[in-house]
Amino acid sequence: MPPTAPVLAVTCGEPAGIGPELMLQLALGEPPPARVVAVGDPTLLAERAERLGLEVGLLELQPGEPVPAVRPGVLPVWPVALREPSRPGRLDVANAGYVLETLDVAIAACRQGQADAMVTAPLHKGVILDAGHVGFRGHTEYLRDACGVDEVVMMLATDSALHAAQPGWQGGAALRVALATTHLPLREVADAISATSLERILRILHADLIRWFGVAAPRIAVCGLNPHAGEGGHLGREEIEVIAPCLERLRKQGFVLDGPLPADTLFTPRHLAGVDAVLAMYHDQGLPVLKYAGFGRAANITLGLPIVRTSVDHGTALDLAGRGLADAGSLRVAAALAAEMACRGSAAATS
Amino acid sequence: MPPTAPVLAVTCGEPAGIGPELMLQLALGEPPPARVVAVGDPTLLAERAERLGLEVGLLELQPGEPVPAVRPGVLPVWPVALREPSRPGRLDVANAGYVLETLDVAIAACRQGQADAMVTAPLHKGVILDAGHVGFRGHTEYLRDACGVDEVVMMLATDSALHAAQPGWQGGAALRVALATTHLPLREVADAISATSLERILRILHADLIRWFGVAAPRIAVCGLNPHAGEGGHLGREEIEVIAPCLERLRKQGFVLDGPLPADTLFTPRHLAGVDAVLAMYHDQGLPVLKYAGFGRAANITLGLPIVRTSVDHGTALDLAGRGLADAGSLRVAAALAAEMACRGSAAATS
Repeated sequence: MPPTAPVLAVTCGEPAGIGPELMLQLALGEPPPARVVAVGDPTLLAERAERLGLEVGLLELQPGEPVPAVRPGVLPVWPVALREPSRPGRLDVANAGYVLETLDVAIAACRQGQADAMVTAPLHKGVILDAGHVGFRGHTEYLRDACGVDEVVMMLATDSALHAAQPGWQGGAALRVALATTHLPLREVADAISATSLERILRILHADLIRWFGVAAPRIAVCGLNPHAGEGGHLGREEIEVIAPCLERLRKQGFVLDGPLPADTLFTPRHLAGVDAVLAMYHDQGLPVLKYAGFGRAANITLGLPIVRTSVDHGTALDLAGRGLADAGSLRVAAALAAEMACRGSAAATS
Repeated sequence: MPPTAPVLAVTCGEPAGIGPELMLQLALGEPPPARVVAVGDPTLLAERAERLGLEVGLLELQPGEPVPAVRPGVLPVWPVALREPSRPGRLDVANAGYVLETLDVAIAACRQGQADAMVTAPLHKGVILDAGHVGFRGHTEYLRDACGVDEVVMMLATDSALHAAQPGWQGGAALRVALATTHLPLREVADAISATSLERILRILHADLIRWFGVAAPRIAVCGLNPHAGEGGHLGREEIEVIAPCLERLRKQGFVLDGPLPADTLFTPRHLAGVDAVLAMYHDQGLPVLKYAGFGRAANITLGLPIVRTSVDHGTALDLAGRGLADAGSLRVAAALAAEMACRGSAAATS
């Protein structure tokens, strides 16, 4: 690992979940092209390593201290202290503040240039709410507020190697799916999509594909809201009244946009060829196919932030914690993506 | 082909679309384990064969006449006459009656035992409506009414070989996705799902998996309606108030049901293992992943009918018609599935 490789601050997430052991696995396997530093409690990591027989040497630094290049099996740590000892599978409201502090340390390091990107292991929203952080909605919103931006966009991406392995698919391209709406009851989705919000989201997606993904002229395929993209108005009018006019306006400004397309047509080789990202209108229109394509090798990316942030695409898996059964595939993809994005972003900034 | 192989009546669909040439391709390629008979205009088929240089010999029978086993390249036809000559890509309302007559011939043959199953090439709903058949909603509803049943269920299935080819997937099982609602604007979906409708649909799906697919004790995985299956009520209450109680009631009657599960969790190897079919709550929750998995090798099946009916999973592709560019993959899968279902159904009836 060259000493100039990007620094990834990886938060260990909920201490009772699988986050700490995923962190250890990341230090043992094929290393991402980056200097990884764990943000979490070193005692917790040491305990979990011993319990699972994982031979990881912890290298304790000060939070924000420069991260050296290390050999596999050594894990630099920016320490944040647990409030109470944590046991696998046992949530404790006392440690909610610890989880949030790991985020604060990583965000500060990214904003101050001590880290080039942050990667997050899963947290448990319920225990943070129960601890009295009543406005807490999740990593994404916490980061949005901490970075002082108005809107962020959630995008998931598969590992680029996956698509290539499926018969009939042209090799190499990752599948990327961004969402126009995220965690809303289905009956609220249609009213939550406006031409204004769609335009903001498409501008963020377009700009970040250029900045972080090295796409010179992004081509984005946009789903309709209704089945068959409304079938000419027979199955809903949002395509005609909201989506198509918004796309038309942006096309006049040089955006390359396909759609609105039926979601069950769009996710086929003919329509995905040459497409850099798909914008789905809602969660279950885009993510089932992304996760089917990715099965454990997909990651979540927050677009619209001034910093790079990627995440695993799964939860805390309390039932698996401490048992050595968790699969670090998604964390590896998240780390690899963050490293790529950080390199591209800094190249763009200096060019 | 043994002379006792099931007889498949394959309707040629919209004459200006790709249906006629798919029919010819079916007669030329690897034959399905069945005696195939085309239901359509022999002159149209002969013209299309000549235009595309496809060497298919037509064997004209009377509608309903016994279908002999033939060698590849020979296509038995139950003739239905076009009302006007048809040109590729040019819809003509005059031929709407022809398209419906091909359906009537196939349905009658299935009901009277001259055919064991029917397979449909795509029709064009718009031209049938324009011709004055104002209540026409599509193949599925037409068949429902013609067979005098109250409810049918739309299910799509991939070719069973596909799944096996994708890394990480256990081989051999087809992906089958049935829908609780079909062609509705998204904003009407939530209100269209009731415990009563769900129960009717699950009963049909369960019964037909046994009858036509040879599944002794079907296991069905059911999606939630909302993202994360409502996340314990935080993202919608339909799972708690409608779906879960319905599943619980049916479990007490011996149904094996998983869920309600988040759609983006369900379509992963861990959750699909051992599942015979998925019930998605709406069109774009289930079909994008099915078509991604199937890309051109998936078929549509109508459950709840007294007869076997399968169909291609695509439209008339007017822009491709007459050019030899259409891919018969979906028609092949539809025919193979119909043959399998017919054999299983008749075995069940005589055992």
